Amino acid sequence: MAAMTASVNPDLQNERNKATFDPIQLTYLLHNGPQQTRRKRYIQSLALNDRVKQNFRTWTELSREERYEESMKKCIYCADRVKELGFKDPVDIYIYNQMFTGHENSPFGLHNSMFTDVLTQQGTEEQKAKWLPLAKNYQILGTYAQTEMGHGTFVRGLETTATYDPKTQEFVLNSPTLTSIKYWPGALGKTSNHCIVIAQLYTQGHCHGLQPFIVPLRNLDNYQPLPGVEVGDIGLKFGYDAVDNGYLRLSNIRIPRENMLMRYSKVTEDGVFIKPKNDKLLYGGMVMIRSFITGDCGRGLSQACTIAIRYSSVRHQTEVTPGKGEEKILDYQTQQYKLFPALSTALAYLFAGNAIREMYLRVMADINKGALGELPQLHALSSGLKACSSYAASEMIETCRMACGGHGYSQASGFPKIYVNVTPACTYEGENTVLLLQTARYLMKCLNSSAQGEELPTLMSYLNKSTGGKTSTITDRLSLRSLVEAFEHRAARLIRECGSRIQTLTSRGMKPDVALNSTSVQLVKAATAHVECCVVKIFVNEVERKDVNPQLKPVLQAMCQLYTVYLLLQNSGEFMQDGFVTGQQVEVLNSKLLDLLSEIRPNAVAIVDGFDIPDAMLASALGRFDGQVYEALYQYARNSKLNKTEVSDAYYKHLKPFLDRQRQISTPSVVTSRL
Amino acid sequence: MAAMTASVNPDLQNERNKATFDPIQLTYLLHNGPQQTRRKRYIQSLALNDRVKQNFRTWTELSREERYEESMKKCIYCADRVKELGFKDPVDIYIYNQMFTGHENSPFGLHNSMFTDVLTQQGTEEQKAKWLPLAKNYQILGTYAQTEMGHGTFVRGLETTATYDPKTQEFVLNSPTLTSIKYWPGALGKTSNHCIVIAQLYTQGHCHGLQPFIVPLRNLDNYQPLPGVEVGDIGLKFGYDAVDNGYLRLSNIRIPRENMLMRYSKVTEDGVFIKPKNDKLLYGGMVMIRSFITGDCGRGLSQACTIAIRYSSVRHQTEVTPGKGEEKILDYQTQQYKLFPALSTALAYLFAGNAIREMYLRVMADINKGALGELPQLHALSSGLKACSSYAASEMIETCRMACGGHGYSQASGFPKIYVNVTPACTYEGENTVLLLQTARYLMKCLNSSAQGEELPTLMSYLNKSTGGKTSTITDRLSLRSLVEAFEHRAARLIRECGSRIQTLTSRGMKPDVALNSTSVQLVKAATAHVECCVVKIFVNEVERKDVNPQLKPVLQAMCQLYTVYLLLQNSGEFMQDGFVTGQQVEVLNSKLLDLLSEIRPNAVAIVDGFDIPDAMLASALGRFDGQVYEALYQYARNSKLNKTEVSDAYYKHLKPFLDRQRQISTPSVVTSRL
Repeated sequence: MAAMTASVNPDLQNERNKATFDPIQLTYLLHNGPQQTRRKRYIQSLALNDRVKQNFRTWTELSREERYEESMKKCIYCADRVKELGFKDPVDIYIYNQMFTGHENSPFGLHNSMFTDVLTQQGTEEQKAKWLPLAKNYQILGTYAQTEMGHGTFVRGLETTATYDPKTQEFVLNSPTLTSIKYWPGALGKTSNHCIVIAQLYTQGHCHGLQPFIVPLRNLDNYQPLPGVEVGDIGLKFGYDAVDNGYLRLSNIRIPRENMLMRYSKVTEDGVFIKPKNDKLLYGGMVMIRSFITGDCGRGLSQACTIAIRYSSVRHQTEVTPGKGEEKILDYQTQQYKLFPALSTALAYLFAGNAIREMYLRVMADINKGALGELPQLHALSSGLKACSSYAASEMIETCRMACGGHGYSQASGFPKIYVNVTPACTYEGENTVLLLQTARYLMKCLNSSAQGEELPTLMSYLNKSTGGKTSTITDRLSLRSLVEAFEHRAARLIRECGSRIQTLTSRGMKPDVALNSTSVQLVKAATAHVECCVVKIFVNEVERKDVNPQLKPVLQAMCQLYTVYLLLQNSGEFMQDGFVTGQQVEVLNSKLLDLLSEIRPNAVAIVDGFDIPDAMLASALGRFDGQVYEALYQYARNSKLNKTEVSDAYYKHLKPFLDRQRQISTPSVVTSRL
Repeated sequence: MAAMTASVNPDLQNERNKATFDPIQLTYLLHNGPQQTRRKRYIQSLALNDRVKQNFRTWTELSREERYEESMKKCIYCADRVKELGFKDPVDIYIYNQMFTGHENSPFGLHNSMFTDVLTQQGTEEQKAKWLPLAKNYQILGTYAQTEMGHGTFVRGLETTATYDPKTQEFVLNSPTLTSIKYWPGALGKTSNHCIVIAQLYTQGHCHGLQPFIVPLRNLDNYQPLPGVEVGDIGLKFGYDAVDNGYLRLSNIRIPRENMLMRYSKVTEDGVFIKPKNDKLLYGGMVMIRSFITGDCGRGLSQACTIAIRYSSVRHQTEVTPGKGEEKILDYQTQQYKLFPALSTALAYLFAGNAIREMYLRVMADINKGALGELPQLHALSSGLKACSSYAASEMIETCRMACGGHGYSQASGFPKIYVNVTPACTYEGENTVLLLQTARYLMKCLNSSAQGEELPTLMSYLNKSTGGKTSTITDRLSLRSLVEAFEHRAARLIRECGSRIQTLTSRGMKPDVALNSTSVQLVKAATAHVECCVVKIFVNEVERKDVNPQLKPVLQAMCQLYTVYLLLQNSGEFMQDGFVTGQQVEVLNSKLLDLLSEIRPNAVAIVDGFDIPDAMLASALGRFDGQVYEALYQYARNSKLNKTEVSDAYYKHLKPFLDRQRQISTPSVVTSRL
């Protein structure tokens, strides 16, 4: 939104004046210090200036096809400009692109991530030398096609085949069934001319499982699909208008042997299949993406919180005391109860996103030195965090939207766009329930190790603690240690219960896999409890960091307490079931929660200011830094495409003839132009 | 979706074969018997045939402006056709229109509901005689403008003024501020030529509060806005593309005195204001709409459940037992845990919708006889039901969508359209939290009456029961009586806790209104508990009806148990806090819940078949009655507008020049048309 007024709404200014800390301190904490904050702001303002200068069309005015086209224009501009600016650091490029395209996504997104990443990770040195320069210089444009119409998260079920023909030293790719048609890959429909296809490898009469193959899709001269390639867009989705998610049907496509990515598995010229030494490494890419999703969900939710909290401090409704005027809606306890837990959850997942990314980098460095020990723990946590963060963000973005009443439902609010961008994270890169079950399987392994007296990885060591017969030490002081202990106890209890149920079922003769399915609802709960326990600990660590600004520290502490207490109360039955947390303690927590809402109230706006999200990124009439929401809403309305003419086309085409007919039927004298 | 194949997917046929009851029995129960079911089906097929014959454009291919236009065309067709068919019963007309326009809403929607309803309810006999024929014959097209940019649920805060000028015997209407601009009324932007404006009445120097005024907006000859009227569309929303929700700014608009609706309040020719005898009657319309929303939410959720459950019984994923093939996803416990509680909730709110509508009609009949006694109870329950049903439907429609993995995110699934149509029900006709607080205020009054030994209305009589010191009688038999008792106990406890907190706060000197706000989080919980208790009882009544088909009865009973047990477990802390439900009982319920999922499993498809929702209404590739989902998805993709040409316009305009430049920069020989 362009600024329409230089002044800040006094309601919002008052909020800022009464904050007890400087928001920049939170910005530094979230963005890794003053230097990186300055860098981020510099790149954001650069991108914003560039965008304004380029004068793109208004998103809301465009049809879906025009959105695709406009986004293509934007991402081409970004590609050129990033090169011109000489950005090398992927973080710099990410910030620039994010600021430039906002919530619109980009038809080049998958080229720059999955396509080049998979080439890098799974190509041989020779393959990388050939393909990476082509990709990085946009001489080819690629995407990654794994999901099929009938096959998603269960990757082994994919049906696309790649059969080796030693006579020509080629692979022959086919989509043998309707369900094997590739479906969903981003930028596959119209944008990409190449694609990494995941297919079942057949050679010498045997299937050797899934392998990645580089498949050219379109003639580079005229962009027509190559013979045997049926490719297209999959049509409208909930969001993601700018991306041509596509479908792909392959009929006897021949590619040279060298187009199978062979860093791990290999097929020799005469068709011999050579197994990889360690197939765990194949999952590195998945772990990385899931780790990043956690931070993205935190960012999406922090945007929604920024909009809702700023709006709630300028929106007035209902006189509580007659004659005293309508209150700011942020002063209502019910509003605080909706927004502040969401705010604390945004912080929790921003911190968790940072923590899991650091863990990922550390574990990857270890792996490059040959140490694979931490990979299972990282894999389990990154899967679970991806699931919990995307569920929480999806749900709470909608809570924020609804907390803004009717205006939240307008696209002017910015919420719908944020929601439709974040919610697919519940599904893509591994469906959430399936991921939580993966986490749970790891927890069951740890439970077995624990039973056998083995040492457990750090994050799991609580399983070895005994809290049997004890009760929680939670009091109205809300000591973070007591709260962490309660979360550990709950997770450990749920994990142990799953273990004993599975044992009972198998001891009655049920097959282990069937027993797992018969326990899966509890397993998901146990995995969720574990992940939430980890998130609580990460949050506590942030509060206890020595370098936290002293004014910020009590604010963070209150947010951490709120996050933890709210989560505990939302699931209080799970904490109370074995009597660890008592009914009296829950009563205390219920009352302390209300106190925390009041404690956080004066700093709510400062906290969202601390997220440091530019107005242009929020793209919200309600979330503007200056709080001039009604002018922005009015402008938004006036700009509606239907208002280009006072009288709509629909009137001339349909309504006028209809109304004229009605007038003729009835006594014409009754109706005049001015009744 | 047109049928693309005559055969039903065998997976779905198997489900139907193994059901233990005939779905038509559920259809009869939900639609008031065989005769009304036949009538409904007859009208639906009529509407469907008409729609097919008219050959409207495909919704997903249209821009927002085209959608508005196409919907205009549709609702004009419906208006003519309904007249031609001679339909008089509003239910018939509702069914016809619903089937015809599906989830697209209609620019005539508010004309046919609020505009004519308010005329009917608040006009004098003279006014009705003048305006109703004009409205019913579409000689004028109207809407209802209450909400302003700065004022929503708190109606008293509205700023639009209507000042009586005795000299000319006119009212002068004005929008004195930016925030007083009317914002959101449906069909206000471009469609309506008249409008009922709610404004603060000023006469003889005094403000007499809100009154309804009929205001002409557009010149009936050329549809230009009349002088002093600034009116337009408010732009894109999350959904509701077909409706021109609008804004309206009035500058010294003069209307004759007779244009104030004067059934209750009156202004005489010389400007004397005459108060109504009973202002409670004014709320009748609101109560009616809120009552109907409950059923609508049940219907929206039942559509989502139909899609998700049919899809889950044809979608296969993951081999549980290696070599045995991938399982139907409906066989996964986690999937059942997502979908069956949603299914039971859909049933619960369909029944509750029917019950509250009957209660509304009964209470209105009483009122017409002068008996107002039940109005407060009806008002409280209809507000609460509207809030609880819209929250539950919103949340669970999304659960259904996500339970369908990636495909749920495609517009082909039908979910996004259902969601964006249902979720505004959380906000419109009274924001949910505000409504729950209204319900809570009624509960506090009943608590006081109870303390004074007064008799309570039927629905509240549980407040007079004493369960102090007792524990729940819930066992693994899941007796409905025990479950109802637990819900009553929880509601009573929460209501009493609110009462004592408010008493404590006021006894410390806090003003009653402030004390209410400081208790509002708990009040919302208490109101929710009360409403859920009522819904449980309504469901139990349906199960225990004598005329329920004997094969259907056990199925309904299991659904009722599931609804109740799931809801109890979701809030187990509230049932356990005072020890009424014990940890052991919760453990039993956790285990029984899993048994219920298995018990319901064979009938899941039959239950959604029993909702009797035509394919054309679902408009879903995944929810088709014949289960041929992959063919439908494939067709949906092929029909994407971006696929009209093999090579997109974006390629010629933007991508080709970009790629050509990249090729020139680098060694051209590397890239050929076929790498």
